[in-house]
Amino acid sequence: MLLLEGFFILLCVPVSLIYKEGIHLELGASGLANILTGGLLMLVTWNADKNLQTRDGFLVVTTGWIILSVFGSLPFVFTGSIPSFTDAFFETVSGFTTTGATILDDIEALPKAVLLWRSITQWLGGMGIIVMSLAIFPLLGIGGMQLFDAESPGPSVDKLHPRIKETARRLWFIYIIFTITEIILLIAGGMNLFDAINHSFTTMATGGYSTKQLSVGYWDSPYIHYVITFFMFLAGINFTLAYFALHLNFKKVFQNEEFRLYCGFIAVFTILTAIVLHITQFNNWEESIRQGAFQVVSIMTTTGFVITDYVLWVPFLQVILIILMFIGGSAGSTAGSIKVVRILLFFRNSVTELKRMIHPNAVIPVRMNNRVVPPEILSNVFAVICFYLLATVIGIIVISAMGYDLSSSLGAVATSLGNVGPGIGVFGPTASFNHVPVFGKWFLSFLMLIGRLELITVLILLTPGFWRK
Amino acid sequence: MLLLEGFFILLCVPVSLIYKEGIHLELGASGLANILTGGLLMLVTWNADKNLQTRDGFLVVTTGWIILSVFGSLPFVFTGSIPSFTDAFFETVSGFTTTGATILDDIEALPKAVLLWRSITQWLGGMGIIVMSLAIFPLLGIGGMQLFDAESPGPSVDKLHPRIKETARRLWFIYIIFTITEIILLIAGGMNLFDAINHSFTTMATGGYSTKQLSVGYWDSPYIHYVITFFMFLAGINFTLAYFALHLNFKKVFQNEEFRLYCGFIAVFTILTAIVLHITQFNNWEESIRQGAFQVVSIMTTTGFVITDYVLWVPFLQVILIILMFIGGSAGSTAGSIKVVRILLFFRNSVTELKRMIHPNAVIPVRMNNRVVPPEILSNVFAVICFYLLATVIGIIVISAMGYDLSSSLGAVATSLGNVGPGIGVFGPTASFNHVPVFGKWFLSFLMLIGRLELITVLILLTPGFWRK
Repeated sequence: MLLLEGFFILLCVPVSLIYKEGIHLELGASGLANILTGGLLMLVTWNADKNLQTRDGFLVVTTGWIILSVFGSLPFVFTGSIPSFTDAFFETVSGFTTTGATILDDIEALPKAVLLWRSITQWLGGMGIIVMSLAIFPLLGIGGMQLFDAESPGPSVDKLHPRIKETARRLWFIYIIFTITEIILLIAGGMNLFDAINHSFTTMATGGYSTKQLSVGYWDSPYIHYVITFFMFLAGINFTLAYFALHLNFKKVFQNEEFRLYCGFIAVFTILTAIVLHITQFNNWEESIRQGAFQVVSIMTTTGFVITDYVLWVPFLQVILIILMFIGGSAGSTAGSIKVVRILLFFRNSVTELKRMIHPNAVIPVRMNNRVVPPEILSNVFAVICFYLLATVIGIIVISAMGYDLSSSLGAVATSLGNVGPGIGVFGPTASFNHVPVFGKWFLSFLMLIGRLELITVLILLTPGFWRK
Repeated sequence: MLLLEGFFILLCVPVSLIYKEGIHLELGASGLANILTGGLLMLVTWNADKNLQTRDGFLVVTTGWIILSVFGSLPFVFTGSIPSFTDAFFETVSGFTTTGATILDDIEALPKAVLLWRSITQWLGGMGIIVMSLAIFPLLGIGGMQLFDAESPGPSVDKLHPRIKETARRLWFIYIIFTITEIILLIAGGMNLFDAINHSFTTMATGGYSTKQLSVGYWDSPYIHYVITFFMFLAGINFTLAYFALHLNFKKVFQNEEFRLYCGFIAVFTILTAIVLHITQFNNWEESIRQGAFQVVSIMTTTGFVITDYVLWVPFLQVILIILMFIGGSAGSTAGSIKVVRILLFFRNSVTELKRMIHPNAVIPVRMNNRVVPPEILSNVFAVICFYLLATVIGIIVISAMGYDLSSSLGAVATSLGNVGPGIGVFGPTASFNHVPVFGKWFLSFLMLIGRLELITVLILLTPGFWRK
């Protein structure tokens, strides 16, 4: 993976030459550092036993993500774009986890080649997430992801290696097709090639890094807003369903209960937001609906693009956005946060409990997509939710201890843990995370990472039992 | 129960006469209205089948609580102390649910007899809660309360009626003993009899109604602060454990894992608060610890007394208080909110999940107090937590729609649902709920009620399945 990362950094070198930014040597050095380290590790482990066990998966995923973030920050440090390693690491973790939170106060001041690398971190991160959530997490037994195992388009082989490869190949194909389509549609709307590539990369990854300080708000074009809204919506869908849709198996898509609830949430919150915006801000319905839909889809899919400074909206709409940050997109998409399917199962178990209390002698299982959900999977889903809430509470305590108010702390934690990007209060979309103390930046980087890895993958490494033979 | 309520209202008549407040006729009429209605209902149902089934329990508990609140508000309306029925109902629900949120902006302006009735609503509510949580809820199978069933000091009879009566008799004895002891200790500290009775009633109920606008802060006496802190702490313990303690069975008390976590939370958050208060506000440690301990115990036990306007504390401490509002006291006490045992089980299930993922083939049950917790009980506990969080989210949406900011809305909902009393932001301890629109008052009353009844008791009535034969 370091070799792949190095290859993509080297891809930025010609961009630097084209725009005559004079940083091609620094970028080349960053790329080579990746490739040399990757090659060295490959040689060292050439004869090692590559028969990974399930348990090794937790360690490989967590350390892999950290190592890639450390080496991915080299282009920022070497080119002097982000001189502090803490800041560069924050920015890279925010990229790979497809969060989109930034420490940059003037994005346009950065060389274009560096901005491209920044967008590529998100695009690569998105690729990694798709494989993790649809091929690796089910095998590790993490929080309900097993439910998609049977539906996954890859071959149902028990061994880790061929399975991941085949699933990855099929789903990346969709990911790339979607990205290219968005690039073409954005160029058709008047965006230049560079911006179109960057924004398509970060849309499909639900990342939200922009090449502009004003984010997508830089373009005063309803067409561009609608195109990006549509692709954010697509990126928040389970990629397995997208695979079925491309094979014209729409029945499977519309019968999927997570997809229906995902659409339901977006519809309800968009309508609510549009109505309130129409009452409080805009005279015309088109603008209210466009702004409402864009912001609701952007936050719920944990992308984090903005076309307006929503911190200036009425408190009611800030509340809606904070709630959306805790829902997130569908499992098996590039979106973060708790995810719709877990919220669905948490709630459905509760309703089933009410039925059980009315009929104490009946055995009433929890069902989803017309299948019984095994209690072990439910219990695991509740564990993810519990750790998510616990991390939120601890996060708010830590951030507020640095002097931030309750709303801002809640926003910073929700947006980091949920891999969204902008928060509320002093962490609103026009502000950056630059004013956070050094410790806070490392802490928020940690939250982004554990949020991305469904918490359990990281927390399991902290239990003594994991390290016993 | 209406007869009992009427009897207690009539008890306030002599108080009115002693203080020459001229409202004895109005109070008498309120009391008689209760007694006549109660008597009438008794006559009407004299020959009715009193063999209640489990399912009837949900309906009886919910409607009982509502009817008592409606009739309990008569003294406020008849005496003109709170002319609006909405306000009087809010105040009475807040009383019976032992919340302590008030719509009064000048408490001392009310006649003493009415203030006494206000405190009595909490004391009676506390009695009701003890019976509900230790005798009725276990039989109805609500959210983990079954765990205490085996430990409960009452006889283990299957029939509803004798069981409740015996449990109630034994636990009320403790409740009354504690109340009388506190009255004596408060008088010893210089409080007058009237105030001592009122504050003891509302301490043991973890209610928090005071006879003073400044709450307990009216008394500038460390002794009184410590006494009330101690009794709030006692009132937040499972009364079954208090029963064992009075029978000198301390082993049973200290081995109880909920009790240990309850003490742990209070210790950790008191120390944290005291340190921050020492740094930011007070020069001496005694004051920092006293204020920290009082406010932490008051909020976590959902009492809601204050000795200072904590809204003026640094944001970090507001965050701590909001978190405490979601923890609450022990199950089987008069405290509200989610409760320590449920948080313990939610977290312990998650840690057990980590162990299960490391050893996928082992069967590892969740344990508490050295006993295996059945999966059905866990599932029911998670349902209560899920509904609690859902009610919080919906609550914040509704309250913020009335124009309140995020922090204030969160505070109002947390304090209502958790039966605490004061919130944060514009609902801080020096403010009242009087500025909330009429609909909001009814909505918050509803939150207090469902919070008190562990949500499930009320929500089950809203399912169509409940009403089918």
